[in-house]
Amino acid sequence: MTKTEPRILKGFRDYTPEVMRVRHFLMGTLRELFERYGFQPLDTPLLEYADILTGKYGDEGEQLLYRFRDHGDRDVALRYDLTIPFARFMAMHQEIPLPFRRYHMGPVFRADKPQHGRFREFWQCDADIAGATSFMAEVELLSLAYDFFQAIGLEHFTIRINDRRLLTALLRSYGFNDLVHADILRSIDKLDKIGAAGVEKELVQKGYPIEHTTDFLSILTMEVTITETLAMLQDKVDVTQEVQEALNTIEGIFATLKERATSGFALDLSLARGLLYYDGPVFEAVVEKPQIGSILGGGRYNGLVGIFRGTSIPATGISFGFERIVTVLQELGLHTAQSNSAQILASVFSRETAPYTFAQAASLRAQGFAVEVYPEVGVKIGKQLAYADKQNIPIVLLAGPDEVAREQITLKHLQEGKQETIGKMEMTRILQEWSL
Amino acid sequence: MTKTEPRILKGFRDYTPEVMRVRHFLMGTLRELFERYGFQPLDTPLLEYADILTGKYGDEGEQLLYRFRDHGDRDVALRYDLTIPFARFMAMHQEIPLPFRRYHMGPVFRADKPQHGRFREFWQCDADIAGATSFMAEVELLSLAYDFFQAIGLEHFTIRINDRRLLTALLRSYGFNDLVHADILRSIDKLDKIGAAGVEKELVQKGYPIEHTTDFLSILTMEVTITETLAMLQDKVDVTQEVQEALNTIEGIFATLKERATSGFALDLSLARGLLYYDGPVFEAVVEKPQIGSILGGGRYNGLVGIFRGTSIPATGISFGFERIVTVLQELGLHTAQSNSAQILASVFSRETAPYTFAQAASLRAQGFAVEVYPEVGVKIGKQLAYADKQNIPIVLLAGPDEVAREQITLKHLQEGKQETIGKMEMTRILQEWSL
Repeated sequence: MTKTEPRILKGFRDYTPEVMRVRHFLMGTLRELFERYGFQPLDTPLLEYADILTGKYGDEGEQLLYRFRDHGDRDVALRYDLTIPFARFMAMHQEIPLPFRRYHMGPVFRADKPQHGRFREFWQCDADIAGATSFMAEVELLSLAYDFFQAIGLEHFTIRINDRRLLTALLRSYGFNDLVHADILRSIDKLDKIGAAGVEKELVQKGYPIEHTTDFLSILTMEVTITETLAMLQDKVDVTQEVQEALNTIEGIFATLKERATSGFALDLSLARGLLYYDGPVFEAVVEKPQIGSILGGGRYNGLVGIFRGTSIPATGISFGFERIVTVLQELGLHTAQSNSAQILASVFSRETAPYTFAQAASLRAQGFAVEVYPEVGVKIGKQLAYADKQNIPIVLLAGPDEVAREQITLKHLQEGKQETIGKMEMTRILQEWSL
Repeated sequence: MTKTEPRILKGFRDYTPEVMRVRHFLMGTLRELFERYGFQPLDTPLLEYADILTGKYGDEGEQLLYRFRDHGDRDVALRYDLTIPFARFMAMHQEIPLPFRRYHMGPVFRADKPQHGRFREFWQCDADIAGATSFMAEVELLSLAYDFFQAIGLEHFTIRINDRRLLTALLRSYGFNDLVHADILRSIDKLDKIGAAGVEKELVQKGYPIEHTTDFLSILTMEVTITETLAMLQDKVDVTQEVQEALNTIEGIFATLKERATSGFALDLSLARGLLYYDGPVFEAVVEKPQIGSILGGGRYNGLVGIFRGTSIPATGISFGFERIVTVLQELGLHTAQSNSAQILASVFSRETAPYTFAQAASLRAQGFAVEVYPEVGVKIGKQLAYADKQNIPIVLLAGPDEVAREQITLKHLQEGKQETIGKMEMTRILQEWSL
């Protein structure tokens, strides 16, 4: 073997134990909540036939696929998201009764330009309800999101809700032709960053008539109650059947969510969410601090889950911005990870005392303590203590020949500088006294 | 979007909710144990520079790498195991104090011929101790393996232990030249399948002298105590310093493990484990039923973890045969997974009653119950009950206009065919009575 320079691909990361603990905490919290809402776990391969993924993410997305020929000269690609594999899965598992709610957490790959907070391999955590058309499906997802933010101790968050059909109706009512909607929405998307004045300036520069633009923006950003907003919309826009459904949906979502919480949810008529395939309610969540953009997104996409099946399957889903939430937790100090998982280091005095020490460690482990037996014999106790200190292991168990002869042990609390020599049956009592 | 035939690559799998539950149970059990033994979590990218992986797995292994050019024309490959990425990690993180114990669970990729129980994407679950030379490191790993089998309820398992240095010394003492050891070990490896007589026949057919072969095999398969075996070896082989170390190691391992369990561990002089890089103690675990081969393997590989670092780092590790253990659990029925994670279906009578029903579901969830709110309004209750039945959800909550007016709910136990209409505050009491 020749010596190779150890290095890692740009946009990819090693997760150290400290980072892994935050990630495990988040995954565990999400999984518990998903299960509590009756979502079922699912996983799909990391590698798919390329044609399963192509034609689904737009030209720009398709450029980012990790695509290659495998050993059988098959055209394959690493998965780009968890939604298209879910659609494929639903076509291959028609035995699954609808409505079906599933969750899926795992890495996806995009050969994007790596930059601060954007990676080429990153985790997605999705929950979707397939086969349901009513706003109750959205209510379940939004309630879950709310519970999640509570569970991780996030205080200042807003879950913004809108319906794409209302935004379209509003654009039309201000005389904007369907062909320019996408262009206008790209500017609207900057409201958070540059404010209403900035967006107005941009739209006027793009050549849109100022009178329409000003009015339109003032509607999008006005702050009144849900009831008043819905009444205003009834007035302003052409209430087609589709618009009436959207109004009923928004009304139903907020009327029901009120049972869960009186704050944390907001109607935001400017919310579009980029993805082309959303065609009903859309939502995203933002935090005040740190300024990191949305930490959750989702919406209804009735056209997508059925694409491999030939029949349409209505669906709505939520996607947690896992990597951003990790950052939020770290920056707000909401999850102070230990630097080591062991609570006790069982030091080893000599080859002769090793079995005795190991037996005490086994007994502590059986009681649920996290114990590391020092994996050497003949290393000076001072060095073992220094190791415990460096690893932030608070307690060291010592047992030399005297202790073994008397069936005793010595427990040493490194941070508090105290120690006790006791009968081995008393270990648990002392550890409890030391509130371990 | 054109319609694409939904299909999956050979050797890759979708994991359905039922299978995912078994996998989650296993991962959770392993993680809890790893943490209790002080192992620290780690993860590395699924994609590496190809030259990090090449030259490490032999010619045959290298053929199986998923290797391609990425967007930057970099030569990259999907990871083949978790050990080489660990070695790379240790070279890039020299700040980590030794001894360091880490665990790592995740998918790896090998373009192997798919066959029963062999996949191209499969999970590995490894625990390694780097930076320790003594048998106490092996004791920790073996004790962990024992605890794991206990935790999943496996009864008839044997953890076989040997030291590669003893096997080499034995081969030499019977006059087998070092150059033929690999060839002989390939036959020895079949002892489980074809028995001592079969192996003897094969070795003689290969041209090895029958008198050496018979004696050698009788030593490998003799059933005496550890002490007797070690004494016999002292007699039979040339006790170099290396052999003396191996004898001390084996003696130390068994003397210490005795404190943990008096059965479940066995010295097996025939155990070689295929991997070239093992150079000390080796181990594997087998179950009597089902006949599936080894479900765990491991050993000491002092030459490997340091390869990217330039300095040698002694290390020993254990790898759980995750996919095989999943099969064992399923075949022995040790983990009877529910087919649905929800315990209660909150049925929805109408749009008007939906908020009330949702509020009751929220209250049950806050108490830890897994509740699914039926995500439609206006679907006949009969259809909702049929759905609960199909999904094996045992309890259905019903609340029509009468119940809402009286602040009541009806709970229906589908399997036991009983139901009660009660005040909403009494829900928990009834569910406890029904031992949910």
